[in-house]
Amino acid sequence: MEINKLEHLLNRFKSGETDLGQTLETLKQLPFEDLGFAKVDHHRALRTGYPEVVFCLGKTPEQVEKIFQSLEKYNDNILLTRADPELFTRLRNIDNRLVYNELGRTITLEVNERKKTGSVLVISAGTADIPVAEEAAVTASISGAHVERLYDCGVAGIHRLLAQTDKIQNARCIIAVAGMEGALPSVVGGLAPCPVIAVPTSVGYGSHLGGLAPLFTMLNSCAPNITVVNIDNGFGAGFSSAMINKA
Amino acid sequence: MEINKLEHLLNRFKSGETDLGQTLETLKQLPFEDLGFAKVDHHRALRTGYPEVVFCLGKTPEQVEKIFQSLEKYNDNILLTRADPELFTRLRNIDNRLVYNELGRTITLEVNERKKTGSVLVISAGTADIPVAEEAAVTASISGAHVERLYDCGVAGIHRLLAQTDKIQNARCIIAVAGMEGALPSVVGGLAPCPVIAVPTSVGYGSHLGGLAPLFTMLNSCAPNITVVNIDNGFGAGFSSAMINKA
Amino acid sequence: MEINKLEHLLNRFKSGETDLGQTLETLKQLPFEDLGFAKVDHHRALRTGYPEVVFCLGKTPEQVEKIFQSLEKYNDNILLTRADPELFTRLRNIDNRLVYNELGRTITLEVNERKKTGSVLVISAGTADIPVAEEAAVTASISGAHVERLYDCGVAGIHRLLAQTDKIQNARCIIAVAGMEGALPSVVGGLAPCPVIAVPTSVGYGSHLGGLAPLFTMLNSCAPNITVVNIDNGFGAGFSSAMINKA
Amino acid sequence: MEINKLEHLLNRFKSGETDLGQTLETLKQLPFEDLGFAKVDHHRALRTGYPEVVFCLGKTPEQVEKIFQSLEKYNDNILLTRADPELFTRLRNIDNRLVYNELGRTITLEVNERKKTGSVLVISAGTADIPVAEEAAVTASISGAHVERLYDCGVAGIHRLLAQTDKIQNARCIIAVAGMEGALPSVVGGLAPCPVIAVPTSVGYGSHLGGLAPLFTMLNSCAPNITVVNIDNGFGAGFSSAMINKA
Amino acid sequence: MEINKLEHLLNRFKSGETDLGQTLETLKQLPFEDLGFAKVDHHRALRTGYPEVVFCLGKTPEQVEKIFQSLEKYNDNILLTRADPELFTRLRNIDNRLVYNELGRTITLEVNERKKTGSVLVISAGTADIPVAEEAAVTASISGAHVERLYDCGVAGIHRLLAQTDKIQNARCIIAVAGMEGALPSVVGGLAPCPVIAVPTSVGYGSHLGGLAPLFTMLNSCAPNITVVNIDNGFGAGFSSAMINKA
Amino acid sequence: MEINKLEHLLNRFKSGETDLGQTLETLKQLPFEDLGFAKVDHHRALRTGYPEVVFCLGKTPEQVEKIFQSLEKYNDNILLTRADPELFTRLRNIDNRLVYNELGRTITLEVNERKKTGSVLVISAGTADIPVAEEAAVTASISGAHVERLYDCGVAGIHRLLAQTDKIQNARCIIAVAGMEGALPSVVGGLAPCPVIAVPTSVGYGSHLGGLAPLFTMLNSCAPNITVVNIDNGFGAGFSSAMINKA
Amino acid sequence: MEINKLEHLLNRFKSGETDLGQTLETLKQLPFEDLGFAKVDHHRALRTGYPEVVFCLGKTPEQVEKIFQSLEKYNDNILLTRADPELFTRLRNIDNRLVYNELGRTITLEVNERKKTGSVLVISAGTADIPVAEEAAVTASISGAHVERLYDCGVAGIHRLLAQTDKIQNARCIIAVAGMEGALPSVVGGLAPCPVIAVPTSVGYGSHLGGLAPLFTMLNSCAPNITVVNIDNGFGAGFSSAMINKA
Amino acid sequence: MEINKLEHLLNRFKSGETDLGQTLETLKQLPFEDLGFAKVDHHRALRTGYPEVVFCLGKTPEQVEKIFQSLEKYNDNILLTRADPELFTRLRNIDNRLVYNELGRTITLEVNERKKTGSVLVISAGTADIPVAEEAAVTASISGAHVERLYDCGVAGIHRLLAQTDKIQNARCIIAVAGMEGALPSVVGGLAPCPVIAVPTSVGYGSHLGGLAPLFTMLNSCAPNITVVNIDNGFGAGFSSAMINKA
Repeated sequence: MEINKLEHLLNRFKSGETDLGQTLETLKQLPFEDLGFAKVDHHRALRTGYPEVVFCLGKTPEQVEKIFQSLEKYNDNILLTRADPELFTRLRNIDNRLVYNELGRTITLEVNERKKTGSVLVISAGTADIPVAEEAAVTASISGAHVERLYDCGVAGIHRLLAQTDKIQNARCIIAVAGMEGALPSVVGGLAPCPVIAVPTSVGYGSHLGGLAPLFTMLNSCAPNITVVNIDNGFGAGFSSAMINKA
Repeated sequence: MEINKLEHLLNRFKSGETDLGQTLETLKQLPFEDLGFAKVDHHRALRTGYPEVVFCLGKTPEQVEKIFQSLEKYNDNILLTRADPELFTRLRNIDNRLVYNELGRTITLEVNERKKTGSVLVISAGTADIPVAEEAAVTASISGAHVERLYDCGVAGIHRLLAQTDKIQNARCIIAVAGMEGALPSVVGGLAPCPVIAVPTSVGYGSHLGGLAPLFTMLNSCAPNITVVNIDNGFGAGFSSAMINKA
Repeated sequence: MEINKLEHLLNRFKSGETDLGQTLETLKQLPFEDLGFAKVDHHRALRTGYPEVVFCLGKTPEQVEKIFQSLEKYNDNILLTRADPELFTRLRNIDNRLVYNELGRTITLEVNERKKTGSVLVISAGTADIPVAEEAAVTASISGAHVERLYDCGVAGIHRLLAQTDKIQNARCIIAVAGMEGALPSVVGGLAPCPVIAVPTSVGYGSHLGGLAPLFTMLNSCAPNITVVNIDNGFGAGFSSAMINKA
Repeated sequence: MEINKLEHLLNRFKSGETDLGQTLETLKQLPFEDLGFAKVDHHRALRTGYPEVVFCLGKTPEQVEKIFQSLEKYNDNILLTRADPELFTRLRNIDNRLVYNELGRTITLEVNERKKTGSVLVISAGTADIPVAEEAAVTASISGAHVERLYDCGVAGIHRLLAQTDKIQNARCIIAVAGMEGALPSVVGGLAPCPVIAVPTSVGYGSHLGGLAPLFTMLNSCAPNITVVNIDNGFGAGFSSAMINKA
Repeated sequence: MEINKLEHLLNRFKSGETDLGQTLETLKQLPFEDLGFAKVDHHRALRTGYPEVVFCLGKTPEQVEKIFQSLEKYNDNILLTRADPELFTRLRNIDNRLVYNELGRTITLEVNERKKTGSVLVISAGTADIPVAEEAAVTASISGAHVERLYDCGVAGIHRLLAQTDKIQNARCIIAVAGMEGALPSVVGGLAPCPVIAVPTSVGYGSHLGGLAPLFTMLNSCAPNITVVNIDNGFGAGFSSAMINKA
Repeated sequence: MEINKLEHLLNRFKSGETDLGQTLETLKQLPFEDLGFAKVDHHRALRTGYPEVVFCLGKTPEQVEKIFQSLEKYNDNILLTRADPELFTRLRNIDNRLVYNELGRTITLEVNERKKTGSVLVISAGTADIPVAEEAAVTASISGAHVERLYDCGVAGIHRLLAQTDKIQNARCIIAVAGMEGALPSVVGGLAPCPVIAVPTSVGYGSHLGGLAPLFTMLNSCAPNITVVNIDNGFGAGFSSAMINKA
Repeated sequence: MEINKLEHLLNRFKSGETDLGQTLETLKQLPFEDLGFAKVDHHRALRTGYPEVVFCLGKTPEQVEKIFQSLEKYNDNILLTRADPELFTRLRNIDNRLVYNELGRTITLEVNERKKTGSVLVISAGTADIPVAEEAAVTASISGAHVERLYDCGVAGIHRLLAQTDKIQNARCIIAVAGMEGALPSVVGGLAPCPVIAVPTSVGYGSHLGGLAPLFTMLNSCAPNITVVNIDNGFGAGFSSAMINKA
Repeated sequence: MEINKLEHLLNRFKSGETDLGQTLETLKQLPFEDLGFAKVDHHRALRTGYPEVVFCLGKTPEQVEKIFQSLEKYNDNILLTRADPELFTRLRNIDNRLVYNELGRTITLEVNERKKTGSVLVISAGTADIPVAEEAAVTASISGAHVERLYDCGVAGIHRLLAQTDKIQNARCIIAVAGMEGALPSVVGGLAPCPVIAVPTSVGYGSHLGGLAPLFTMLNSCAPNITVVNIDNGFGAGFSSAMINKA
């Protein structure tokens, strides 16, 4: 539940639009609404100032729909990740303001979009890494950050990256997304005067080990300004980058 | 080479204290001085505003000494990590302003210490994790951050952590250090409205796998504001936290 | 073969309903009936006081059907785990008293259900962990335990768990089910004055390694009252919890 | 802080032996005493009814000594695990009631030893597994359980185990300790009508992987009444067995 | 090319049925016939006295067909492993003497079946391990061994195995097939006075790691008379057992 | 962009066929053309003298098509790897000079094929390794090397390999492709007086670990003239062999 | 207790040298003598016809000494493996007939050495693998086999192995010992008409993984007559080879 | 045995300095001299044109000494790797022409040093990687290559590497040595028009996994001209580079 929704509730009570009983009933559902299979958190946005998020993997469409409906009552900004097109179609029928990012597989509700601030730069090493990069970019954006994208800049063709040194110098936070050998963050880290969040992807084969290879590359980086998130975790990178960007 | 050292160099030339040849000779050594076994970077502090760092592991004492002497010429803030007591004794003979942190195994030179700003909170899960936590704390501090410590707050006794909720709420960046199961960052992440850098440690045994167990715990955390560094990498966590704190 | 079935057999012999030959023939099949591909154990329930169990994974529907028919002759309580809906339909045609738990994928026969005793509390970290939690709950219940469920209580939102402290304090045995980072059992272990059985699940991605990440988390827990079962092994946790609950 | 120590404190206040200020000062240190490097928990024994425990690995002798002295003020039952002989000598000088188990590497303080109840059976597969078995046995005993030992009963000579079937049948909880292939718990689990806690040990070589081999053996056991603890974690097994034994 | 086929060739030349050119042409193709994608070995049976074998996995049906046709020219005993039913149907159209083992997925041609000698005993731990056990049994049989089968004798119900001690005592070589924890060979090894070949299977889940868990169990066995083959490698176990049986 | 295309561009400018503006526009697109999702490198062929390459895995057919069209403008030699038949059909519609290698899954455009020089020998251990071997052979060939193939020469039938000693002695560079145990390169390395590039394949099962087993075999080879590429990386082996062959 | 010792015992009773009580007392200690920390098996030699074996790793010298003294009472053939020189000196003082193999680290007692039969061939790939090969050779010999050794025959210099083809052709069982890439057994397997036991060793570095690399090589071998034992398990290979040799 | 030593032998026979018997005796020792624990190869240099090499790890000093003395009889160029200073002192007493490289731990005998040709460039990422780089450089040099060194050029400070682009452009073969994240070869590969041999080192900690992290980085590199050798295998890289350089 975001601050403005809470103010609205209290003002309606004050103005007599709702009575004490109704207001209490609403507040009582806080801090979370128990759907049995899920405890929907209505306080997080209030506590943190960020959108509510639903991670769709491993949840049935019915469960996601109920969670979404519970969230929608109190929130203007909602992000659903790892959402397939069928799920989008289903939810779109409920709320036609929803937007789908096909590559990033995100569904977003962003009512009264606020002005984006600061500068988060999302760099991907290869074309195949773009889905993860998009998840990161969408997350950072809905969390309030101004986002720029720079795709297919892997280090085996270093001139593509060096051509963008000014963008790297001017970002507040950089997200470096890479599969295969995952060397991109090390080079970016050495060029950037800001925190770099490294995201390994599952793009690769053989000894790539489903992304463990670039994950270990990034964890062992010599650049001191790099931190790492889980393989393919564009969401986590986007969320953290928005926090850093806002700091 | 920090900005003020560079200004000093140019001013001395302007005032005639040094001639053109000497000034050029000094500048020519930039951006790095080649010692054969190491290319000492005199531009990094200039580029980034952070101290010069020497990672001592795998270097001979002679190599560290030469690198330190090269750095000392142009820098006021120097940090040496993974330094054993013998190395400290050796370098102390060269420069008696050096300070040793016995638990964190760091050596620091901090001439004209600047005012520390912001708030970095370093939390450790257990007593045995303190060495890594100290490396992080010292690094964050010499990089300009005001640092607070909270040790032995593992989640198996959750009340110890909950008793410190206010500190967690007020930090700009939190470093959560944990060995064994490494669950601390997940709980801290849920309580904190700021970025949390998780540091797994090699404290544990058996299926702990030298720290891989808590590393994977942290990478898989459900909390969205967590990023991770390598096992025992207090330095990386401290450096990144200072960057975030400064943002 | 359960005690009451054995008594019934002997009483029928005593009363003349069956003759010596028939009775011996029945007893001769003990301790197990050899179906060629399986040796069906008719003594286990007798020995242990628990239901007969069929683990369906890796068995053909024909094999499961034959094993079930062999078991049904001497047992009132039968549990089939890892059973898909098609298998349930097939067996339902044989015995319409069978019950299917769709999430937990269990089929149960529970004739003359006995009173459930004690208190086993099943806690899941996330919505996606519920299938494993249900397998555990169903198993504990058919094994004689009174079971309570508490779902979606992951530690990244610690208030959801702390709100249930009284239930945790009053259980005789707790089953803590968690995928992702698997930190739930550590926190529960610290709050509970009873044994906690930790169940890692395969819910996760990337460095989750199919459940190895939460498995290692749980094995390395600092809480002293935690023991662990295999990834997704809700059955084993439910069975052991019922034994502990009964002790 | 155990119940009787707390009663003593309150009675002394009531009788006037201590005044309000002193009593409050003592209580204020609860629930834990902060030594800086450790938060010593004085409430756990009160909460759980079990001894206070210090895990010595990774702590300096000075730290262990201070923690012990802090615990000793309020507790009659203290267990220190992974303690080497030098540490024992050091602490013995402080409190000569301490007892050392050389194989199990435990130090125990057990003032006013209570009567042991129930029946915990500790079985080891080989001679080299005895140290872990002893840690388990000592822990179970100081936690209130009557403990029996059965050593060198590995399954490659199955007659050694079968010769002890009656002991296995009569235990309330069994701890099965095994290195090498770790097959012991599977056989014991099939014979025992009670919960079995399996403890893999690091005894082995080659593809034993420091104990991962028997750990995986135990986690994959077909016996339904087996739960597992970390490699070499005799303490955890002993503690949990005492809880189950007491249930 | 088996001895009797070679004799036949030479006799036909001697008797004038074939002339020198034809005979040489046939012999020239030896020791192997090069199909481009495969070099079919016509000398192995000659050298070793065992059937020709085609491992079908990873080969196209066309390739298998051509290899089979090449082999059939000179061999009476042919074994194809990892063959699906479609492949059998295809080859059956070429040679209707072929036999398919549905569980073991083997196709065999055994012209003029010789008398089976000695005694190879194939034991499986569970019902789901039977496919691998059958591959082993078929291989041992076509290689000349008299084979007995004993299925579903896992160690968690040790009485099922102990009931067969006499068969174990009388075998010349035993193949012990087990998935899950893979403990069967250790117990069998202790009971058997002959070599035991252990075969881990991929039957299991979670920390079973696709069969690595039972593989490591078997490699670490305390029984001295155990050797091990690859996961699911029934063929290798069957072949080696026949060699040992024949010795 | 290859040298001859660049010359053509400049000659057309010189002769007046194109004016300065058009020529500059073309050159400006260099060194790479930014398609948004990909930065197509037009300088590589110029820099390296090798064909342009598109790795199709993880790219959508639309993306591959656009990249191909961009490359085709400036290059005569193009190689697409990991291409399925559908993709070939799609691209064939654009340019009917394209050639598909079904086993190797490569698409090639080779306008004005140059004379192949030197000698690269591609050896495969088994029939199932041929797809990777073909990828290597096609790559080496389009990169200018004269290529010979030697398939199904695994070391378990060493005579097949020894029969080809002269080819091994006369090659400039050998590519040894092997799945299963991956022992082929060790034997070849000992026989060959030239560099051997070892390629592990994912052909195998069980403890083969998707190709990690032969990968580690090859990395640990005692032969001093062996270097290794990623599992199934026929392309990398082919490319490097062509470089060595050309040296 | 070997047959002849048992006969001796009974004859002494028959002849009146010992009375009934003494004889019964001796027999009562069977089938094993319980030393508390070890149950010494006096029946194994009787049951199996092989020497008694003590695996010294992980046992204290005192424990080994007591076990040896218990075994010596009833056995003429005793083998101690993984024994360091200090242990040998200690035991030599008790029984000066003991023999030490310095490379293989074995201690043997072989009273009335029997004639060695059959033919076990032990081949090592490198000089550094000899200790494991010696453990195997000594074990096979004391178990009754005639043993031949062939050292430093790795496949990277294949001519060294091919020069010994006749020995390979004539053995009843071959033990192939190899570290590094472990390719030796594959080649030997292809040349040998008898069972081959492959022994990986821990000789290697880097991706050798302490012997896992050659272990996996051997498990994945294409040769059908290979079985494998644990890394460095010369004893297991020697024992099994003797069983096969005797068959 | 090198060509010139063989000529010398034959010429001495021709001139009558040695008689037929002596000459034959010498030749008979070929192709290898059997020392029992090692078969010293006197033909390799003859066959390959490269120095004889002794890998000292795992060999006793006595064994190395004997192998060296055997080699010295017929070779002018000998390389010993992984040699500690004590070994050098021992061998120096035998032949004072030996040279020790302290960092690279190599001992070399290079009589009548030939002119070095071509250009092998050895680049190291960090100071701590120099020992491996030196092993590579010494090996390449004694194998006939002209070698240049470029140390401490890791990609986190990319300007250090870019400053050397001309050297990279002009080499015939490059060896790129890197520990930590191992990203160096990817960047070098993109800049170099020649084959790059990547050498991962064991320099690192935590998730570095003893060098597996950079090994996997290198194997997964996007640059097409990279092949890889084992962790710390400077020798293999040096030898292969010399072969490529000579091609």
